[in-house]
Amino acid sequence: MQKSLLQNINSPKELRLLQQKDLPQLAQELREYIINIVATKEGHLGASLGVVELTIALHYVFNTPEDLLIWDVGHQAYGHKILTGRKDIFHTNRQLGGISGFPKRDESNYDTFGVGHASTSISAALGMAIASQLHGSNKHHIAVIGDASIASGMAFEGLNHAGVTDANLLVILNDNAIGIDPSVGALKQYLTNVKRGTQKQDNIFEALNFDYSGPIDGHDLNAIISELNRLKTIKGPKFLHVITTKGKGLKQAEENQVKYHAPGKFDAKTGDLIAKTASLEPPKYQDVFGYTIVELAKNNKKIVGITPAMPTGSSLKYMMDEMPERAFDVGIAEQHAVTLAAGMATQGLIPFCNIYSTFLQRAYDQVIHDVALQKLPVIFCLDRAGLVGEDGATHHGVFDLSYLRCIPNLIIFAPRNEVELRNMMYTAQLGLSLPIAIRYPRGRGITIDWEQPFTKISIGTGVTLKKGNKLAILSIGNIAKNVTEAISNLNVSHYDMRFVKPLDETLLHTIFKTYKTVVTVEDNSIKGGFGSAILEFATVHNHENTIKILGVPDAFIEHGSVDELQNNIGLDAENLKTIFNTLL
Amino acid sequence: MQKSLLQNINSPKELRLLQQKDLPQLAQELREYIINIVATKEGHLGASLGVVELTIALHYVFNTPEDLLIWDVGHQAYGHKILTGRKDIFHTNRQLGGISGFPKRDESNYDTFGVGHASTSISAALGMAIASQLHGSNKHHIAVIGDASIASGMAFEGLNHAGVTDANLLVILNDNAIGIDPSVGALKQYLTNVKRGTQKQDNIFEALNFDYSGPIDGHDLNAIISELNRLKTIKGPKFLHVITTKGKGLKQAEENQVKYHAPGKFDAKTGDLIAKTASLEPPKYQDVFGYTIVELAKNNKKIVGITPAMPTGSSLKYMMDEMPERAFDVGIAEQHAVTLAAGMATQGLIPFCNIYSTFLQRAYDQVIHDVALQKLPVIFCLDRAGLVGEDGATHHGVFDLSYLRCIPNLIIFAPRNEVELRNMMYTAQLGLSLPIAIRYPRGRGITIDWEQPFTKISIGTGVTLKKGNKLAILSIGNIAKNVTEAISNLNVSHYDMRFVKPLDETLLHTIFKTYKTVVTVEDNSIKGGFGSAILEFATVHNHENTIKILGVPDAFIEHGSVDELQNNIGLDAENLKTIFNTLL
Repeated sequence: MQKSLLQNINSPKELRLLQQKDLPQLAQELREYIINIVATKEGHLGASLGVVELTIALHYVFNTPEDLLIWDVGHQAYGHKILTGRKDIFHTNRQLGGISGFPKRDESNYDTFGVGHASTSISAALGMAIASQLHGSNKHHIAVIGDASIASGMAFEGLNHAGVTDANLLVILNDNAIGIDPSVGALKQYLTNVKRGTQKQDNIFEALNFDYSGPIDGHDLNAIISELNRLKTIKGPKFLHVITTKGKGLKQAEENQVKYHAPGKFDAKTGDLIAKTASLEPPKYQDVFGYTIVELAKNNKKIVGITPAMPTGSSLKYMMDEMPERAFDVGIAEQHAVTLAAGMATQGLIPFCNIYSTFLQRAYDQVIHDVALQKLPVIFCLDRAGLVGEDGATHHGVFDLSYLRCIPNLIIFAPRNEVELRNMMYTAQLGLSLPIAIRYPRGRGITIDWEQPFTKISIGTGVTLKKGNKLAILSIGNIAKNVTEAISNLNVSHYDMRFVKPLDETLLHTIFKTYKTVVTVEDNSIKGGFGSAILEFATVHNHENTIKILGVPDAFIEHGSVDELQNNIGLDAENLKTIFNTLL
Repeated sequence: MQKSLLQNINSPKELRLLQQKDLPQLAQELREYIINIVATKEGHLGASLGVVELTIALHYVFNTPEDLLIWDVGHQAYGHKILTGRKDIFHTNRQLGGISGFPKRDESNYDTFGVGHASTSISAALGMAIASQLHGSNKHHIAVIGDASIASGMAFEGLNHAGVTDANLLVILNDNAIGIDPSVGALKQYLTNVKRGTQKQDNIFEALNFDYSGPIDGHDLNAIISELNRLKTIKGPKFLHVITTKGKGLKQAEENQVKYHAPGKFDAKTGDLIAKTASLEPPKYQDVFGYTIVELAKNNKKIVGITPAMPTGSSLKYMMDEMPERAFDVGIAEQHAVTLAAGMATQGLIPFCNIYSTFLQRAYDQVIHDVALQKLPVIFCLDRAGLVGEDGATHHGVFDLSYLRCIPNLIIFAPRNEVELRNMMYTAQLGLSLPIAIRYPRGRGITIDWEQPFTKISIGTGVTLKKGNKLAILSIGNIAKNVTEAISNLNVSHYDMRFVKPLDETLLHTIFKTYKTVVTVEDNSIKGGFGSAILEFATVHNHENTIKILGVPDAFIEHGSVDELQNNIGLDAENLKTIFNTLL
């Protein structure tokens, strides 16, 4: 088969000139194109393979970009990007300066709404559809949302509003029974019953006033095109239930959907993963969390674990496997996860609630109102704090220190290495009288020999890492590593403050009395974060030292490797060294 | 009829000794008790009157506080408080030092979970129920939630998780078709159809795996008690649909449910509201918002208004009445409200999204991820910023400056009076390239003659209110009033900075060069707020002035009048004056 179709498609206009009978060939080519590039460049594979036919059908039937198409989350939008003018730069996906791994308005007018976090598409599409009504336009508005995302509260809010409008909105449920991990929850069971025919057709979505159709086979191009053409003629909110297979077309990706969500490098022909060199590496912080909670939970029956849809990513899966009755994947439901933990804590359980830093933004009110206000000792483990790398602006966890610091009663801790993470998990489950947020980064730490006996950490104490004369550098968390490297030949002091709240005021008074100049280093925004806490301390106590704050600038940081991004914003060891030198 | 029953009930134990036939009399007495006290002491009336029978039945059937009862939001819990040992102090409700207007764990062991914000009860009750399972306890767990609250996404997340557990959870839907304002949304229509019998019984809640029963008459004590007793014997998640009338038993409260949600003082016998003295007062900020958006929207067709369930409280109702196709009450759905606004903004509309400061905490991620990251010029009007008074700790809007300040691209403005609010609304709808948050307080402003011609405000500029020699005081927003009063006889300067972001750096440089000491005043947390922004500015620019930060301390502030609370935390004019004097 000649690969001639995709080659000539630089926009959906050319796609629409094809005959419908040629589309399966295009689907085949598009799938291969995705596989070949992701195999070497890495990225999210399974989701995009699953919607190849749907993607083609949507651009074939609808008049994009006039008609407005929104991909929820956006992991599945690679085919969309390739068909909408980004085929030739698709190999730069997720790399510094390259295209984003998610739809992004700056990148293309086919990307009608920037995404990354789940469950925003219905609300955004409804907003667009209402705008079109007010403008007297009859364009179409389509939200494509997965079965994991639609179970999140925000999606329900969008459906609940849309159902009482006559907006020209089509919600397409891309139902593959999996998000990053398999979908959970009652709605998922319900959808399974719909698929099996054991559920009556007068269903939840009809109850919410949507014109429901489906389920249809999401890999049958003729079926999808026919149904989309029919739906184009129907007014008001419509709901199409499409069944797809995540990873479709690559056997291993279909069979191991969690692994092939974002598999890293693999052999494009065989699908085999390319094993990384098996050097002895420090563990991922995620694994340290996962192994440690299991270890602690074996001895402390009060411990429970909660994750909102990230069992694999967070490694809570280890606990779910070993003690399933005490470890809970609640789905993409951060708000529920936090208040569930609060409810558990009222009854004497010790909940470890593991949420990515960027996703805790979804449960901010619950942390304040349900946990901190009631002084419930929930243990928040904020994974992927700081810069996360290739996922980019939507996913960096660089605001948590700022948005958490104003919450009364909350302890905020950041381990500088794996041992500190373990020891704080150990300390917290011994029994705190207040909630705590433990924020740590994505990926590998620095300590090969991390499985040390537990030591209790005294709340609100920092530690001295290096003593020198000229300058005091205060760091928080994992960025200590860069500082350590930067100062290896400098005559300066380095303190790991460990706690952003409460601050170690005794240590700080000593530091402020000893050094004229104090520098703070964090991988959080310089607005309101750790550095600001130090400024507030100095002001309250009338210390007149010179203070310099280093951290993430007040701008959204794009994608790239963590090293590249740290270098760009001056937080890598080399840049830090230059800055420290100017202060000596 | 003798009022002998309620008199002798100091806890549910005594209630349970009554014969079931006596309960209607108790209901009558309890209703009168609530009416008599709220008539003179003010508070939330309608919700509690609606659940008098349900409250009695729950405590009669279940073994509270061993069985765990959670009231969603808590406006309806007055009867609960009176029956659980707080009858004699109920007259202190919502007053400084008195009992809270909401259930609160510190106050009673019958208050199993602190509430105030909507839709938390299912998650919290499920957490408790799972804890009981792990403890091997067979206690009951009951969440009572209204039809407005259950339509919020968080409630859906709780139901979706509960449905796949076998937790001993009873969710009671108190369906009166109204929250503070009438309920909206597709789910509400659906529930209406269920009530009318036009909806099949295989319903949404059954689809989510709940054992559904109802609807039953929530004012029929025998029916409720019988059904609760039956439900006690059923395992797993259960759902009881109860129909009640908000304001039940007071004719005017039944007929004007919005007004009698929290009616202020009224005649307990007739129900007539007690008119306030009709002196010429400055308007409420809410009315300034409401009238101004209508005025602007008449001339600018791009303007739309959005409120999540607060049309009356925010006064967006004026626009909803005048131009219903452009003003949207989306229900208790802050997340959806924000992203809906973002979607509208992509299509060139100018959305005013009005959300109470404390409730924007529910949509924090959407502000970051859907609005600010995409630089969509949504205009957030943050009502009830600062201390809100009698609603207390759950409702004060004292974190917004801190949690918003770290968000790149966001403009943050606080008007010191009504004219400034109007002018910023005017300025924003002329067309900004970035989103803006305009935060203003609850209640009346200071300007009788507030309807001035519009003037454009230059973004990022502060203004000089008073020139003096000794000290520079920088305030933000409405608290300027207290500063003005405090410094009437002091030789100091007073600047209204107006923008927390971007700061007026030109003005700040002048100030920092002119005065040795700079004081900041805000009604936001001193952690990470306006004062911290000034500290950061000073540090970056190497200003070595003495800076003092005044604001809300790092603790949850309880209920009381705003004046009392400001006095307690030192932000009233008198305390400010004392502090300023010490700095002269």
